[in-house]
Amino acid sequence: MDNANNTQAPEAQRQAHLLAALRPMAATLPESGIMAVVNYGSEKAGVMPFWAGEGDAPTPVFIAEAAIEALRQGHTFYPHLCGIPQLRQAVAAYVRRHFLANVAPERVIITGSGMQAIMQTVQALVGPGDEVVVVSPVWPNIFAAIHMQEAEARPVPLQCAQNAWRLDLDRLFDACGPKTRALFLNTPGNPTGWIMEPEDMLRVRDFARARGLWLIVDEVYGQFVYDRPRVTSFLEVMEPDEQLIVVNTFSKNWSMTGWRVGWVVIPHSRVLGQVYENLALYNTSGVPAFLQYGCVAALTDGDAYLKSLVEQCRQGRALACERLATVPRVRLVWPQGAFYLFFQVEGESDSLVLAKRLVDEAQVGLAPGSAFGAGGEGFLRLCFAASPATLRTGVERLVAALA
Amino acid sequence: MDNANNTQAPEAQRQAHLLAALRPMAATLPESGIMAVVNYGSEKAGVMPFWAGEGDAPTPVFIAEAAIEALRQGHTFYPHLCGIPQLRQAVAAYVRRHFLANVAPERVIITGSGMQAIMQTVQALVGPGDEVVVVSPVWPNIFAAIHMQEAEARPVPLQCAQNAWRLDLDRLFDACGPKTRALFLNTPGNPTGWIMEPEDMLRVRDFARARGLWLIVDEVYGQFVYDRPRVTSFLEVMEPDEQLIVVNTFSKNWSMTGWRVGWVVIPHSRVLGQVYENLALYNTSGVPAFLQYGCVAALTDGDAYLKSLVEQCRQGRALACERLATVPRVRLVWPQGAFYLFFQVEGESDSLVLAKRLVDEAQVGLAPGSAFGAGGEGFLRLCFAASPATLRTGVERLVAALA
Repeated sequence: MDNANNTQAPEAQRQAHLLAALRPMAATLPESGIMAVVNYGSEKAGVMPFWAGEGDAPTPVFIAEAAIEALRQGHTFYPHLCGIPQLRQAVAAYVRRHFLANVAPERVIITGSGMQAIMQTVQALVGPGDEVVVVSPVWPNIFAAIHMQEAEARPVPLQCAQNAWRLDLDRLFDACGPKTRALFLNTPGNPTGWIMEPEDMLRVRDFARARGLWLIVDEVYGQFVYDRPRVTSFLEVMEPDEQLIVVNTFSKNWSMTGWRVGWVVIPHSRVLGQVYENLALYNTSGVPAFLQYGCVAALTDGDAYLKSLVEQCRQGRALACERLATVPRVRLVWPQGAFYLFFQVEGESDSLVLAKRLVDEAQVGLAPGSAFGAGGEGFLRLCFAASPATLRTGVERLVAALA
Repeated sequence: MDNANNTQAPEAQRQAHLLAALRPMAATLPESGIMAVVNYGSEKAGVMPFWAGEGDAPTPVFIAEAAIEALRQGHTFYPHLCGIPQLRQAVAAYVRRHFLANVAPERVIITGSGMQAIMQTVQALVGPGDEVVVVSPVWPNIFAAIHMQEAEARPVPLQCAQNAWRLDLDRLFDACGPKTRALFLNTPGNPTGWIMEPEDMLRVRDFARARGLWLIVDEVYGQFVYDRPRVTSFLEVMEPDEQLIVVNTFSKNWSMTGWRVGWVVIPHSRVLGQVYENLALYNTSGVPAFLQYGCVAALTDGDAYLKSLVEQCRQGRALACERLATVPRVRLVWPQGAFYLFFQVEGESDSLVLAKRLVDEAQVGLAPGSAFGAGGEGFLRLCFAASPATLRTGVERLVAALA
């Protein structure tokens, strides 16, 4: 390979040429605001990471060993595109066990992460020029998935008032115009912990029905609730053949973020099933079958582990909220669900600057609120899913740095 | 869940409503012509599958055990978006060892399958209204990936004449118009085994340079060559910062189709690296780290396995070609590369009908040529990567059925 070609333009010019040759959508695809801090801090010695949506426990042994057994048995050929039948059945049984919803296994599509569940759904429903109304602040990747279809996201911010996050439904409905194809909701919500109440779910359902809109609902944190026995799933309030897509993942419930397996429940429809099979084929051609056997173990034998993880998060929430509430500059609302504390620091308006400063000064990694779209700037997100000793150390560092 | 809601429209009407509510791109996304036969035959007892691009050997133990060790060590957290550093380095070393190209590890992006490598590349380069010129017949998923961007594929068929597949370069260049953004080449090619000669590579390179076009080159079968010591990679004839993307996968070389891991070599460019990191984040957020340790083992310790697999395919090619050449109705060209025999049967013009009939009458599963785009109809594709005894049984069934 010879780089000393006299006919070549200077390096900077050639790099600019490469950039100009990209598709404009890709060249303008936003870098994740969370990754901006991760990339800033991940190589710095001693920084404790609370920036991502995961704790510090590896995947439980019973899940790993089920995948290992399947791998050793030779389940290493092209997988079923929509998931192995056992896993689709196990998801259906899990939904039935935890929610008042009876989902047929054919409605369950296994995906290569919750992210892919969202991406394939947006690919299926939203095209150039369409709009999706998104309740924010929210996990930012939905905005990017919409951008990748050359569609527009219209955020409707939650309001933080009277010690709670609230959604103004009239504002949500007013945001829906003639180009709106779908509403995206994440409840329980990342990063706020907001939970949509059942009566509001019914109003949203009725509005979507009347307007012919899709509801895309991210219920990834459906098990992480603290002040009520359980949440209601949208699957409980809508019919099997309505325009509802419910997104989920194995990542959070069973400490499997590194497995990249999720699922989606689609309407009961042969046509939609074929569309999701096609999308699976053309995106990644399925999820490794041997990993799916591990997922079956998680669903079948993982309720006790899940319960203990939720309990750990409940204690983590108390620790983080109680200690940070002692800092005069901190304003916080106890989250109702998920496993994040989303808090403000008085006098700090640029959350990315603050997050980087905390990496350097407190050796603690948080996600900047600006990463989560409209309504997020001025906040920081702390994941409290880590084990108690780790979380305590990190929180005390934060308290000291912000005091 | 109550299905007996009086206000509901009849089932057929609601299903039509769901279909109409889909994005038109998704509703018109083609079902794979290969899957059409797989879905037809996979549940039928005794059918031998030669329809997919895989043999019958599970992944070698040394690769599986490396992944198992990493899984047990707890590599189960969110992965590096572009791949673990060890794997990116191992790919660079592999390329250096097998080809005359020196690729920096930063240019290597690990992807969730070769399919995802193609999908992310098309997402990065091709938008609505753009065109991609594709040498066909070819693995059909590239057409679908282009369709998913609401772009157009313009196929340029190879010609089968004088006992070889040939590409008319003038025809290729004439197909490139003002909307053309990229050329897609698969060499050695699936399904034909065609290999682009080095002098043609230079002409294509010069044309792409002059016109500012991207070259997307699928070199997945770069090791499967039979009548020459090795093939030349496009990485050998282009500079590191030119508009070249080379796609590859672990699937074929090391019997890892079920792992869904691939890689792509991108130009040397910080901006492009960031774009691919973003695309990784928003598609699936990376590939499981513990699987990547298995991939490191494949690259580092897998040359001998690869060599034996290529040798098995060489014998498979001979067996399939020699036996099928004895059937008077069969017309075939010995493939120069890849591991498929792409052959015609006189008097059979509908390859999907014929493939289904062979499932029923010969209990052999082949892929219909119509699945591979322009120039493919009238052919059948047989994968000869299986072990000798299995392949022999299947070929003899075919010979008997077609005689």
